[in-house]
Amino acid sequence: MAQAIRIIGIDPGLRRTGWGVLEASGNSLRFVAAGTVKSSDKAALAFRLRQLHDGLREVLDRQAPDEAAVEQTFVNKDAVATLKLGQARGIAMLVPALAGIEVAEYAPNAVKKAVIGTGHGEKQQIHMMVKVLMPKAVIDSEHAADALAIAVCHAHHMQSPAARLARAVAGAAA
Amino acid sequence: MAQAIRIIGIDPGLRRTGWGVLEASGNSLRFVAAGTVKSSDKAALAFRLRQLHDGLREVLDRQAPDEAAVEQTFVNKDAVATLKLGQARGIAMLVPALAGIEVAEYAPNAVKKAVIGTGHGEKQQIHMMVKVLMPKAVIDSEHAADALAIAVCHAHHMQSPAARLARAVAGAAA
Repeated sequence: MAQAIRIIGIDPGLRRTGWGVLEASGNSLRFVAAGTVKSSDKAALAFRLRQLHDGLREVLDRQAPDEAAVEQTFVNKDAVATLKLGQARGIAMLVPALAGIEVAEYAPNAVKKAVIGTGHGEKQQIHMMVKVLMPKAVIDSEHAADALAIAVCHAHHMQSPAARLARAVAGAAA
Repeated sequence: MAQAIRIIGIDPGLRRTGWGVLEASGNSLRFVAAGTVKSSDKAALAFRLRQLHDGLREVLDRQAPDEAAVEQTFVNKDAVATLKLGQARGIAMLVPALAGIEVAEYAPNAVKKAVIGTGHGEKQQIHMMVKVLMPKAVIDSEHAADALAIAVCHAHHMQSPAARLARAVAGAAA
């Protein structure tokens, strides 16, 4: 049996950043934990970013993932919203990097394809399929559901023949 | 004579983040240091954000500023550029916050007004005035010059009657 790899998916947002952890072993997925890190609307921006950093760091300490994945953001809102999202996304990528964990990025349609089998689909469909793939998942927010979907996408890509070969070569070289 | 307050200004960018430190004492400004933190174009995004974090943290450790200031970004580029800037800006605000330092934000026209006396003006004018205000300043990049301008702006706001009163009240209460 393949060794289980623990993956954290992160869905960044300044008010709420979702996270979801699963274990991928061969083709099977096991739900580990999921949740939402919040920042206070009324606090100064730098303090809010620190709240996100501290919350995510606590999650990483507790869940000890091997790998991390974040969705590539394609921006459909105004510039102010994009800048806010960018700031939160910076923290979401930094915290695993500070822990020495590689952070993969996936385009939204890659996430959809991994979870519902096609690059197009509604958010609700994605959330439903996350529950089908991991019936024991306890999900407290839309952001946590999105984060789990990103982790599922990373697990699928890890199982690709190219990824298996790369790991085998790295293992043989180590 | 008023006690000197050490201010760091930061001008965030994903490729190059400028920083500049000065000491403000009464109405006088003294240049302390300035420089540019870089990230490698070819590295993965999470790693680049970590490079910015590590570089800025080293600067904060070495320079030990009392206060920090970052320019409020008004975005005039495409969404992809805005997102990149947002990610770098998130790190620029996080690092002082993690060190327990308050981070002030100033609009670009407030920075211009503080340095050249009007809310409108060219970049070059700002850089020239930074050199006039602090003739001993050693400036290695446009980003470092912008960062010093932001620090000058913060120093001016600290000298406002309202800011003096707030500090006196805080001092009396402490």
